[in-house]
Amino acid sequence: MSQKPWDGRFSEQTDRAVEAFTASIDIDRRLYQYDIDGSIAHCRTLARAGILTPEEADELVFGLESVRGEIESGTFSYNDSLEDIHMHIEDRLFSHVGNLSRKLHTARSRNDQIALDTRLYVKDQGGKIAGQLLDLCKAFIDLAENNIDVVLPGYTHLQRAQPVLFAHHMMAYFEMFARDKARFEDCLKRVDVMPLGSAALAGTTYPLDRSYTAELLGFSSVSENSMDAVSDRDFIMELLSCASICMVHLSRISEELVIWSSTEFSFVDLPDAFCTGSSIMPQKKNPDIPELVRGKAGGVFGSLTAVLTLMKSLPLAYNRDMQEDKKPLMDAVDTLRTCLDIYVRMLPKITVNRSLTEAAADRGYLNATDMADYLVEKGMPFREAHGVVGKAVAYALGEKKELHELDLPELTFFSSLIEDDIYPALSVKQMIDRRKTYGGTATQNVQEAIERARKRLS
Amino acid sequence: MSQKPWDGRFSEQTDRAVEAFTASIDIDRRLYQYDIDGSIAHCRTLARAGILTPEEADELVFGLESVRGEIESGTFSYNDSLEDIHMHIEDRLFSHVGNLSRKLHTARSRNDQIALDTRLYVKDQGGKIAGQLLDLCKAFIDLAENNIDVVLPGYTHLQRAQPVLFAHHMMAYFEMFARDKARFEDCLKRVDVMPLGSAALAGTTYPLDRSYTAELLGFSSVSENSMDAVSDRDFIMELLSCASICMVHLSRISEELVIWSSTEFSFVDLPDAFCTGSSIMPQKKNPDIPELVRGKAGGVFGSLTAVLTLMKSLPLAYNRDMQEDKKPLMDAVDTLRTCLDIYVRMLPKITVNRSLTEAAADRGYLNATDMADYLVEKGMPFREAHGVVGKAVAYALGEKKELHELDLPELTFFSSLIEDDIYPALSVKQMIDRRKTYGGTATQNVQEAIERARKRLS
Amino acid sequence: MSQKPWDGRFSEQTDRAVEAFTASIDIDRRLYQYDIDGSIAHCRTLARAGILTPEEADELVFGLESVRGEIESGTFSYNDSLEDIHMHIEDRLFSHVGNLSRKLHTARSRNDQIALDTRLYVKDQGGKIAGQLLDLCKAFIDLAENNIDVVLPGYTHLQRAQPVLFAHHMMAYFEMFARDKARFEDCLKRVDVMPLGSAALAGTTYPLDRSYTAELLGFSSVSENSMDAVSDRDFIMELLSCASICMVHLSRISEELVIWSSTEFSFVDLPDAFCTGSSIMPQKKNPDIPELVRGKAGGVFGSLTAVLTLMKSLPLAYNRDMQEDKKPLMDAVDTLRTCLDIYVRMLPKITVNRSLTEAAADRGYLNATDMADYLVEKGMPFREAHGVVGKAVAYALGEKKELHELDLPELTFFSSLIEDDIYPALSVKQMIDRRKTYGGTATQNVQEAIERARKRLS
Amino acid sequence: MSQKPWDGRFSEQTDRAVEAFTASIDIDRRLYQYDIDGSIAHCRTLARAGILTPEEADELVFGLESVRGEIESGTFSYNDSLEDIHMHIEDRLFSHVGNLSRKLHTARSRNDQIALDTRLYVKDQGGKIAGQLLDLCKAFIDLAENNIDVVLPGYTHLQRAQPVLFAHHMMAYFEMFARDKARFEDCLKRVDVMPLGSAALAGTTYPLDRSYTAELLGFSSVSENSMDAVSDRDFIMELLSCASICMVHLSRISEELVIWSSTEFSFVDLPDAFCTGSSIMPQKKNPDIPELVRGKAGGVFGSLTAVLTLMKSLPLAYNRDMQEDKKPLMDAVDTLRTCLDIYVRMLPKITVNRSLTEAAADRGYLNATDMADYLVEKGMPFREAHGVVGKAVAYALGEKKELHELDLPELTFFSSLIEDDIYPALSVKQMIDRRKTYGGTATQNVQEAIERARKRLS
Repeated sequence: MSQKPWDGRFSEQTDRAVEAFTASIDIDRRLYQYDIDGSIAHCRTLARAGILTPEEADELVFGLESVRGEIESGTFSYNDSLEDIHMHIEDRLFSHVGNLSRKLHTARSRNDQIALDTRLYVKDQGGKIAGQLLDLCKAFIDLAENNIDVVLPGYTHLQRAQPVLFAHHMMAYFEMFARDKARFEDCLKRVDVMPLGSAALAGTTYPLDRSYTAELLGFSSVSENSMDAVSDRDFIMELLSCASICMVHLSRISEELVIWSSTEFSFVDLPDAFCTGSSIMPQKKNPDIPELVRGKAGGVFGSLTAVLTLMKSLPLAYNRDMQEDKKPLMDAVDTLRTCLDIYVRMLPKITVNRSLTEAAADRGYLNATDMADYLVEKGMPFREAHGVVGKAVAYALGEKKELHELDLPELTFFSSLIEDDIYPALSVKQMIDRRKTYGGTATQNVQEAIERARKRLS
Repeated sequence: MSQKPWDGRFSEQTDRAVEAFTASIDIDRRLYQYDIDGSIAHCRTLARAGILTPEEADELVFGLESVRGEIESGTFSYNDSLEDIHMHIEDRLFSHVGNLSRKLHTARSRNDQIALDTRLYVKDQGGKIAGQLLDLCKAFIDLAENNIDVVLPGYTHLQRAQPVLFAHHMMAYFEMFARDKARFEDCLKRVDVMPLGSAALAGTTYPLDRSYTAELLGFSSVSENSMDAVSDRDFIMELLSCASICMVHLSRISEELVIWSSTEFSFVDLPDAFCTGSSIMPQKKNPDIPELVRGKAGGVFGSLTAVLTLMKSLPLAYNRDMQEDKKPLMDAVDTLRTCLDIYVRMLPKITVNRSLTEAAADRGYLNATDMADYLVEKGMPFREAHGVVGKAVAYALGEKKELHELDLPELTFFSSLIEDDIYPALSVKQMIDRRKTYGGTATQNVQEAIERARKRLS
Repeated sequence: MSQKPWDGRFSEQTDRAVEAFTASIDIDRRLYQYDIDGSIAHCRTLARAGILTPEEADELVFGLESVRGEIESGTFSYNDSLEDIHMHIEDRLFSHVGNLSRKLHTARSRNDQIALDTRLYVKDQGGKIAGQLLDLCKAFIDLAENNIDVVLPGYTHLQRAQPVLFAHHMMAYFEMFARDKARFEDCLKRVDVMPLGSAALAGTTYPLDRSYTAELLGFSSVSENSMDAVSDRDFIMELLSCASICMVHLSRISEELVIWSSTEFSFVDLPDAFCTGSSIMPQKKNPDIPELVRGKAGGVFGSLTAVLTLMKSLPLAYNRDMQEDKKPLMDAVDTLRTCLDIYVRMLPKITVNRSLTEAAADRGYLNATDMADYLVEKGMPFREAHGVVGKAVAYALGEKKELHELDLPELTFFSSLIEDDIYPALSVKQMIDRRKTYGGTATQNVQEAIERARKRLS
Repeated sequence: MSQKPWDGRFSEQTDRAVEAFTASIDIDRRLYQYDIDGSIAHCRTLARAGILTPEEADELVFGLESVRGEIESGTFSYNDSLEDIHMHIEDRLFSHVGNLSRKLHTARSRNDQIALDTRLYVKDQGGKIAGQLLDLCKAFIDLAENNIDVVLPGYTHLQRAQPVLFAHHMMAYFEMFARDKARFEDCLKRVDVMPLGSAALAGTTYPLDRSYTAELLGFSSVSENSMDAVSDRDFIMELLSCASICMVHLSRISEELVIWSSTEFSFVDLPDAFCTGSSIMPQKKNPDIPELVRGKAGGVFGSLTAVLTLMKSLPLAYNRDMQEDKKPLMDAVDTLRTCLDIYVRMLPKITVNRSLTEAAADRGYLNATDMADYLVEKGMPFREAHGVVGKAVAYALGEKKELHELDLPELTFFSSLIEDDIYPALSVKQMIDRRKTYGGTATQNVQEAIERARKRLS
């Protein structure tokens, strides 16, 4: 049975280069477990429909499990002339159960078969990604909690802006990855639809109980329209969109870790085990992990571009172009999963140089806004206060002092509303804890946010 | 008050080219209504917090509404030196309420203000898109229903494969756009979070009741973390992902309409009003609408690429790069909305040339699968039956006949299992109606699918 | 020597997951030959500079060639803890030449080494692509020449527009791929720059004769600036741009072959050996090769997106993100090269169904423009003639006739300028051959274009 | 003459929404000057062919110039029902020259007309971009020359690596932008091809002297194949590729300026006129220009994605999808040109804080490589020397000293090869000037590189 499943009408031998060009086995062999699970469920469904006897179904299932065993033990061999994983498995099944194997493909096409395999893959991997995001969220909460009293300059435009708690900064990432998790979960709802029984495109003439197949495979529902089921790949595009957005978030924390690891910032120490050195410069300790994660974002965006482009303008139903969906899908899933894994491992081992972050938060006029707020409280309109403080900053810059290092006469020169109570208002501690409006960086806020976050995860 | 809001410390005059380069007013002026709505809600919240008196709040609201009136009546003037819509409105507000206008920006930064405006825009537009998708879904249901008995060849690889109902084909699109709608709705859940009160990045020192602001603006919740609220734009990337996927679907039906409008297919007639002619070839009736929609998909993918790229690797919190998110966002929203609109208008007017689609379904060996199924029913394993039919097709091709045009002796030459009952089995009507497994193209199935679809929409 | 090249300062053992995450050996092992060639040239240059003795250089070269032999014979083993191909080769070199191997990396960093390897790869592959494009151009010329008198409807908007020679249509692709070839050649000029000697980023303190290295490796020039040499990858982005544009062209001819292979068009027959069948529908002969090529365009665009994104916003000089450039580069090169290869094989075997293409060119009012031109020649302004013909077409449509099937009284009803000489003017043959302005589809034009094309290639 | 140019055969009134959807006037009105130039050249060519009398041609040219005057003086009015710029101009021409205007479109289609207009636009704008790149290259040379003796830490992985001259760093950008310029110039060679005379797709029946048209319009050659000429847009994709790569380079210098402007680095001061402040934080001086440029890179990549996607899989010849090429093209050209302009203005005004950059170059073990090189010179194999220095760095870190702050006994502990001459070898000045291999950072090298660069530009 090493013939093609369709070569009845061909007169010429298929050219070897064509075989190599059209074969997908290098990629789709990774789907073997889903393909076998799907075939087993199909067997059971054929048996329930009376198309196979129970004994035939048992024998086929036994044969399929034998093939699975061979694949998993590494004794299975692959070759391009068998095109894809479906044919490899069916061909090998023939060795186990003989002619009976030829009944397995009844009421099924490779079109619905690959739609099923891909959905099983996405369901499985998407679920694992959601699990990894849960771990990552926990890691950020832990990192926040373990550094609850560490202060750091908050930046806008990479300029020091206002002091924030390091924990608050980390909880911003918690929010991003929590949304990522929700996004994957929403995506998975749309993946959770069983396409088998759609056959080539028009549905099947055999009386299959598709709900039974769905139940066996753990799907919540069956597809409503056979043409849609075999021809659309929006669930892949959606997964790749979720992955791309998640990589944006990972690239952002990575960028921060790279910047914070520079000598100039020195805000954090990455664990030695997660860095590498230089082949020529012995003093280097390079933040390779965040750099690689940051770089890998591009590859995931590229996968999304690839699948959007390949699906664009395809007429219904199945077209061979769609074979090209699996490489970008798997590349992106692999990339995202290893990036999440390495972050879950690395985050707990990051140490913050609190003496340096706190010193940084104390210099650079981060209390300018609070000085403006102070003036507003004393009755000055905000825009005017902003102007007054701008002038004070310019003066202080000239004197090479911070605002809180100016003495009272210097300060009152800018506004007579300023009094001695300005000094505590300009302290880092007060600045942090006065931002107690919901969502702000006040210590108590952040502690409560951490508690809420833990609850949201459980 | 034509000064910059921040120029206290600047010694040089801002260069005009810099003004033009940094100004966003050409783009963000479209956000005026959201900006004013946000400012009004902010006023009310400031009043509730005792930062403004009720009278001040009323006066500011009145002033803001006056500015809105001026914008809507076209008497408002724009210039680059006022940078953005926030400053334009505040500057103009000064003309209406004088110094009081300077109090409006208390407890607010442009960072949380633009986050709010953009969320209001996405909420509004995303909701409208979902509404348009509902209309589009209805249009596909109607088109299906109005052509319930029209048969068409179903294609794979653009080769005739098996006959399907035109209605079944249309309902495949219903499914795609119904998923698109669900995807936008899931996206909107994550948009529905009120960011105001996050101030520049660290939260505000003023005791704002953010839930009250949320309530006034129709948001379901408030943001949990101020740094996240002002620095993330994943809701934009998600909307653009949804839009890109939806454009893939639109590009597919467009490709089909273009192909079906060719002389060679002639399956449909697009309404004259939706076509254009040629400046040089008087006979042409070009399917411009589907072509343009197909082409516009590229632009939406480009918008997604743009925002993913620009957000990648940005450290927290706000960075000026993020100003560049609005053009691709608005471009994509505009494109998608006009494409949906034009499709909702065009679909009902499409006519199907049923005599041609039905003739096409009758030729090209579309009953080959059914002949194989026939043999399977008679006891032949599927793979073997497939081979038998392949040989019969090759023979028929040589005879320039269809399978159902071969006489019984010719057919039995390929398998002795074939009997006279093969002919009805090979008729288009039976082929369609035998595919009655859930999701298949049998007429009754499709009628029920239409009914379920109507229920799902209501 | 299984230690890392940089682990003098590390206190912790490198974590295994980190090793797997950071290792690039799975990808860059494909660069082994370029790496060894580069190392050999580096040896010779070190010897010329007196840093190695001639005997040392000979021994190292011998050792490197031994390693090459091991790799090529498949006896070489790879593992993640050696990170990359550079370390694998150097580590193995130690087995051959002992401590001497440690001198090889003098005056070199992995930063300039990988820049060299990648340039050698791009130079080699880019040259091969240019060669394949030459073959493809020849194949289009041959296809044109072999079908010089075949007429086909020319399309705009996939609507029949005016008759053209099939050869003219094919020569349009010749032009596209000839430009692609020129584009790759321009790209290769910028690749042809030797970076070694740039060391980590600042240049080297050793007196290397870099021109000698360049000469040994076949480069025309050496890099001007060490920081640029190790940090820029614009030559990769340019190659990927060229590849993307070329894939656009391949996708277009592929789309045409898919459409032309449909039953409705039936303009061409693809060779059986380049098609596959269906596992469920025995009559199918699917245009898989063009479909796959069309689909693969997306992957190449994705590679370009990936590298643009990863390089964006990287500070000088080398960053680890840049390790991620090789996978998209190699993916795209592999894809393009196999697509070109398969097209060069397939094109000569395509047959045109000239009776069908010619019949198609005769119907669908393709002579409407020529009727307008006829009227213009008789003195009517073009815009007016266009309107007259439009009305004639509408009338003929109603009569279910072509323009040349209307009799003279019918025609003169639309304009009294029409005389009996209109009929030859409306014949396909004349329409083709009257378009003899340079670049037009007249037979003689096309023959001359073919001759010029052959000359351009030689 | 407000009718459509093609509505002879249409029975229904074109719907207003369709008009708005299909109209391109909002975008292509920017092409008016190219369209008029093209029409004038077309007139002259028609006259030379005897299709127009000289007087008619003069009158048409006069009319076209009158329309140009109206457009440029702002008295021209636009509306969607006239679709595009071609029809607007022709319609208005009618007012000036009456029925004669109807002769202008003889031997021309909108297909070759828009191909011409777009090529003229790209030629013009591409040439201007090349000119701006020349200015930018000069600005980098000047910046290098004016800071020829300023030392700065060179970075890899954003970790201090080895000291370099600031001028050397700037000259790396010179190289990048010089390549960008060459890339645009290569692109322009392929743009410089005159398409008019290709008509709708098949060429024209009128005896046009296309070389004459080319000469009038300043093109070097005419297109070889009419179908290619009207249907390909690879020159746009190539321009967008060049623009994308150039934006990568701009994003890199921008990233560096943002990082260098941070308080932590403080390596440069951007001119006040090129920064903006904060609406809430009076002390902020934000590097808005580099941030915006960095962000705008995404939009240009998006334009490239858009055009690649829209052109993918389009059958020959013209398809309406191609109308969508102009917006991304113009968006990208505008973006690139304004970014180049602002950089040419800003660069000369950047000041380097040399005391800070030099202090930074002195700390962080940037002389570690040179210590290894020192040991190699004394006879130690490089890999071993690397290990020795690694240990010395670890020791020095523990002592909170730099390598050059260790005393001789401390140093000799790590290797007995170390002698008193190590100290000058570890000085920044020597480290720089020892890197005198071609392309290295030695002062004399950089001075010579600057001279060569000036010559290359002239």
